[in-house]
Amino acid sequence: MFSASADNIVTGSKLLMELLGAEASARADIAERMRAAEHAGDDATHAIFHQLNSSFITPFDREDIYALASSLDDIMDFMEEAVDLVVLYNIEELPKGVEQQIEVLARAAELTAEAMPHLRTMDNLTEYWIEVNRLENQADQIHRKLLAHLFNGKYDAIEVLKLKQIVDVLEEAADAFEHVANTVETIAVKES
Amino acid sequence: MFSASADNIVTGSKLLMELLGAEASARADIAERMRAAEHAGDDATHAIFHQLNSSFITPFDREDIYALASSLDDIMDFMEEAVDLVVLYNIEELPKGVEQQIEVLARAAELTAEAMPHLRTMDNLTEYWIEVNRLENQADQIHRKLLAHLFNGKYDAIEVLKLKQIVDVLEEAADAFEHVANTVETIAVKES
Amino acid sequence: MFSASADNIVTGSKLLMELLGAEASARADIAERMRAAEHAGDDATHAIFHQLNSSFITPFDREDIYALASSLDDIMDFMEEAVDLVVLYNIEELPKGVEQQIEVLARAAELTAEAMPHLRTMDNLTEYWIEVNRLENQADQIHRKLLAHLFNGKYDAIEVLKLKQIVDVLEEAADAFEHVANTVETIAVKES
Repeated sequence: MFSASADNIVTGSKLLMELLGAEASARADIAERMRAAEHAGDDATHAIFHQLNSSFITPFDREDIYALASSLDDIMDFMEEAVDLVVLYNIEELPKGVEQQIEVLARAAELTAEAMPHLRTMDNLTEYWIEVNRLENQADQIHRKLLAHLFNGKYDAIEVLKLKQIVDVLEEAADAFEHVANTVETIAVKES
Repeated sequence: MFSASADNIVTGSKLLMELLGAEASARADIAERMRAAEHAGDDATHAIFHQLNSSFITPFDREDIYALASSLDDIMDFMEEAVDLVVLYNIEELPKGVEQQIEVLARAAELTAEAMPHLRTMDNLTEYWIEVNRLENQADQIHRKLLAHLFNGKYDAIEVLKLKQIVDVLEEAADAFEHVANTVETIAVKES
Repeated sequence: MFSASADNIVTGSKLLMELLGAEASARADIAERMRAAEHAGDDATHAIFHQLNSSFITPFDREDIYALASSLDDIMDFMEEAVDLVVLYNIEELPKGVEQQIEVLARAAELTAEAMPHLRTMDNLTEYWIEVNRLENQADQIHRKLLAHLFNGKYDAIEVLKLKQIVDVLEEAADAFEHVANTVETIAVKES
């Protein structure tokens, strides 16, 4: 069930990619599909909680399952919020670094989707954890350069505020991928 | 003891309501009463922690009691911060959507206060959890519309920054109600 | 090992202090040393996680060790981010209250470094916990006054945005010290 949730995040990250190249007229449609992906994510989360409620024995500690499902849900929420803000604020052009942010998110989404099936055996998870932490550091660097770019005088203050909120939400998505990896690490620590 | 904490939050949400209609001259008095409510909340939180310290047997896991008390404390802190910022920034008029934000918080406060006594029996908590999650989604929609309104060009950038901080803090209060509901759900999952 | 992590935070808080009085030309060097301190912090965190992985018996619950190491890591990250932003945004002069913020952080860092060795015996930790909570309240007051100062009309909007981000990150560092203290309290509650 975590795999369903992570696959959905891969869908979300592809929609973010699509948004980058989209005409203004195509954005509403992408936002609509993003909303559908977020609802599918909510359903996956609720299915996990429901299963948790009706199971006597669980593969890991209930709290960890809960934390993992919640963090996966957070990623989807942040990605959906980013798309929604681009439409809501009617952003004409996103600064260049946003593309790099989204590429990092897409890579983290792939790694997370690949890692989830390994929760069964706890094999090969160290590499995933290290790589997602590395990607989060990279996202952090891109985010800081983007902020410096926004503040360099080319944009007016209201435009800075709008764009800053979007790049901040994408940074929160990168942080949430790290939270997922850290929860996986916590589970691995307990199982070891 | 959680009930005392939640009743105090109801008091806080009523003070937020009162703030909306208040003359500028009456605001300092409301802020004063809000600060008193926040201190009462702190006392309730410390009473829970003290009880936790001196009890050998607790009704739920100590960590969950700790998390629940902390989240209730957070709600009060965010509500107090909102009132304090309105006074500190000397805001002349709050945008319309703020009233809707506060109405959602007041409803969530009532539901939370009603739910706390049910922790004894674990009855009727599912409905509370679903409803608070629904209210948080509603708060989220109101919050995004408020941001679009702030950025539509009528306000100057400094005014946008002040008002954005206030509506963001109110959104954090809505999120904190969801955290309380999620902790209640975690406790219910463990007891089931 | 928590002591190594906390000592490193003391180093970080001293570099923040040094930054206050530094010429613009000396800032890059301070940022460099801050980055080194942050890397040393990362190493301390990973050493704790590695030890956790290879130990069958741990002095406290694994989750609490994990939470404590993560919170100590967060403090270092926020302090490093603050220095980095000052350099990145090429800030000419920091508002006066920032000095007070950093003094509170330096005091919290000292108290935290003093408290860590007491985790062995669980002695004298109540005073530490109360004092860090008091310092966090003080940091909160300084932070709010700083925001009011930034918004009083002397700064242009882009400058407000830059400075606000720096004072917000310093406030997050103060909050992270409180998280460390709260985790220590949670451990103490369980041991009692």
